[in-house]
Amino acid sequence: MSTEKYYVGIDLGGMSAKGGLFSPEGKMVAKSTVKTCKEEGFAVTAKNLAGLAREVCELAKVPLSQLGGVGVGTPGIIDGANGIVVAWTNFDWENVPLAAEMSKNLGGIPVKISNDANAAALGEAKFGAGKKFTDSITITLGTGVGSGIIIGGKIFEGFRGGAGEAGHMTLVVGGIPCTCGRRGCFEQYASASALIRDTKKSMFEHKDSAMWKIAPDPEEVNGVTSFTAAKEGDKAAQEVVKNYIMYLSEGILNLVNCFRPQAIIIGGGVSGQGEYLLQPVRKYVDEHLFVGFDRIPLSIVRAQLGNDAGIWGAYALAAND
Amino acid sequence: MSTEKYYVGIDLGGMSAKGGLFSPEGKMVAKSTVKTCKEEGFAVTAKNLAGLAREVCELAKVPLSQLGGVGVGTPGIIDGANGIVVAWTNFDWENVPLAAEMSKNLGGIPVKISNDANAAALGEAKFGAGKKFTDSITITLGTGVGSGIIIGGKIFEGFRGGAGEAGHMTLVVGGIPCTCGRRGCFEQYASASALIRDTKKSMFEHKDSAMWKIAPDPEEVNGVTSFTAAKEGDKAAQEVVKNYIMYLSEGILNLVNCFRPQAIIIGGGVSGQGEYLLQPVRKYVDEHLFVGFDRIPLSIVRAQLGNDAGIWGAYALAAND
Repeated sequence: MSTEKYYVGIDLGGMSAKGGLFSPEGKMVAKSTVKTCKEEGFAVTAKNLAGLAREVCELAKVPLSQLGGVGVGTPGIIDGANGIVVAWTNFDWENVPLAAEMSKNLGGIPVKISNDANAAALGEAKFGAGKKFTDSITITLGTGVGSGIIIGGKIFEGFRGGAGEAGHMTLVVGGIPCTCGRRGCFEQYASASALIRDTKKSMFEHKDSAMWKIAPDPEEVNGVTSFTAAKEGDKAAQEVVKNYIMYLSEGILNLVNCFRPQAIIIGGGVSGQGEYLLQPVRKYVDEHLFVGFDRIPLSIVRAQLGNDAGIWGAYALAAND
Repeated sequence: MSTEKYYVGIDLGGMSAKGGLFSPEGKMVAKSTVKTCKEEGFAVTAKNLAGLAREVCELAKVPLSQLGGVGVGTPGIIDGANGIVVAWTNFDWENVPLAAEMSKNLGGIPVKISNDANAAALGEAKFGAGKKFTDSITITLGTGVGSGIIIGGKIFEGFRGGAGEAGHMTLVVGGIPCTCGRRGCFEQYASASALIRDTKKSMFEHKDSAMWKIAPDPEEVNGVTSFTAAKEGDKAAQEVVKNYIMYLSEGILNLVNCFRPQAIIIGGGVSGQGEYLLQPVRKYVDEHLFVGFDRIPLSIVRAQLGNDAGIWGAYALAAND
C-alpha cells in the first residue's frame, strides 16, 4: 500500500452507505454515512457516494488531492475489472458503470468496485481473521448466506463477477425452494433465517421445550433462541442446533473440497456463538473432508471485523494494485 | 512456450504411464508407455518415468540436452508448487518428492507435477475444447467424477493441492454413501458407475424395458445402455437418462455458482453422447443459474482430446512458467 496517500472505503447498502477514510498508516481516521434509496436512481446514488468520500476527507481535513482512490463494496453481481454493476435487482441496476460515474464526480480519482460480500471477505483476509493466510473464504450467516473468496490475497470474482455465490450451491437436490430459482441451496439451511424457521418449527413440535420460555411469542424467535436453550440442556433445541451445524458443515465441506483454502472465516449474527458453534463444525468438517486436517491443515475461525469488514475491504480494494 | 526446446508430458496411472515428446512447434513427435505397479515402490517408479522421458527422446532422436522439461500428471493429492505427492492412497505414497526424484534421474532437467485430472483439464484448456477461454472447469465422467479447475490459464490447486475435488461435493446431504466418507457426493450420481447402477436398478423395476434387449445380461450394462434405449423411445430408459442429466446439471450449477468459469468441459465415456447429453444439460443449467446465460455467457462443451488430454496437459505444465 502507498505510504503517502489516503484512501476511502465505502460499503453500499439498500438503505445507507457507510464510508471510512484511511490514513497512509492504514488507520480509519473518519467515518460517515449517507442514505440510499432505489428511487433516486443510479446517477444520484453515484453522486451521493462521491459526496460521502468528500465528506470523510473534510471531516479529517484531508484535501482531495491527497486521496489515492476510493473502493466500494456494493450488492449485486459486479464486474470489478470493468467497474460495472452487472445486476443489482433490488435497485433495478443493470450494467451500470458505477466506478466511472463516481470517478467523474471526484475529478478523476480512481474508483474500484466489487461485490459487498467479496469486499467483506477481503477486509477479513487483509485486516481481520484471515491476516495469516493468502487464501480464505468468508461465509456470512445472515438473512442469506453470503460468501467471498480470496485467492492469493485478491478477490476471486470469476467471469464478469459471477463467482462466489456459495449461498446458492445446492446441498439437497429437490430440497427447500430458494429465491434464486433452485431448490436445496446452502442458504436455505445455514442462514440465520433458516435457523429461525427451524427453531419455530421445533417449538410447535415440542410444546414443552425451554425455547418457549425464551421466546413466548414465536415472532420473537431469533438466531440465538435455539442456541440459548440448547446450552441450558433443552433436547429439542439441541436437535435444532445439531442439524444446523451439520448443514453448515456440509456446505463448508463442499467449498473446501472445491477450493481448499487455508481458512474458512465465519461471520454474521450466528457466528456470535463463537466456539460453541465452531468446535463441532471443525470436528464434522475434519471427519468428512476428502483430505483431512492431518494432511492439509485448515483453520475454521470467527470473523473479527463485524459490520466494518466491508469498509475495510473496500479500502484494501482501493489501496492495492 | 519456448520455441527451441522439446518437452515431455507424462500421464501416470496405476497400471501404466503414457509419455509424449513435444517439438518446439508444439507437435507430439513420439509416444510410448511403461508399466507401473504399486509393489515396485516410489524410487523405481520415478526411475522408470525418467526412463520413459529418455525413451521418447531416443525415439525421435532428440538429445536430452534439447529437453526443456518434463511434466507429469499423477493420481492423488499433489502439491505442485513443491513437486510433492501429498497422498496417493492406491500406491501408498505419502509426501513423496516425485519431481525432485525424477529430475535427479534426468541429470537435473526440471520436472513439474500436478494431479492427473488437473493435467487433463489443462490439456483441454490449452489445446482442446477450452482454447478460447482463460477460465474453464473440466469434468470427467468415468468410474468417478474427476475435475480440474483452470483459472487464468493455470491449474488452480488450492492449498497443498487439495482443490478441485468436485466429485466429492455433496449434492444430497445424507444421500448415497461415497468412498470418501461423506454421503451424497456428486460422483455418486453423475459418474458412469452411478449411471450403470441406476440403469440396472431401472431394468429390474421394468422387466419390459428395451434395455433388456440391449443388455440381456445385466452384467453387460454400461454407460451407453440407457442412452441407446432412451433414443429408441423406451420410457424407463428415458427416466434414467433424465435423472442422470438432472444430477449432472445440479453439480455443474454448484461449480458455476462458486467459480463462474467461462466454460464447463465434459469428458469421459459418458460425454460420448455429445449433444444428446449436452443440450438438456445446457437448458437445465441456464434455467437454474444464479445469473443466467443472458447476463453472463457460459459454454458447456464436450472434451476434445480424449485419453491424450493428460499428456497434453502435462506438456503444457512443463513448457509454461
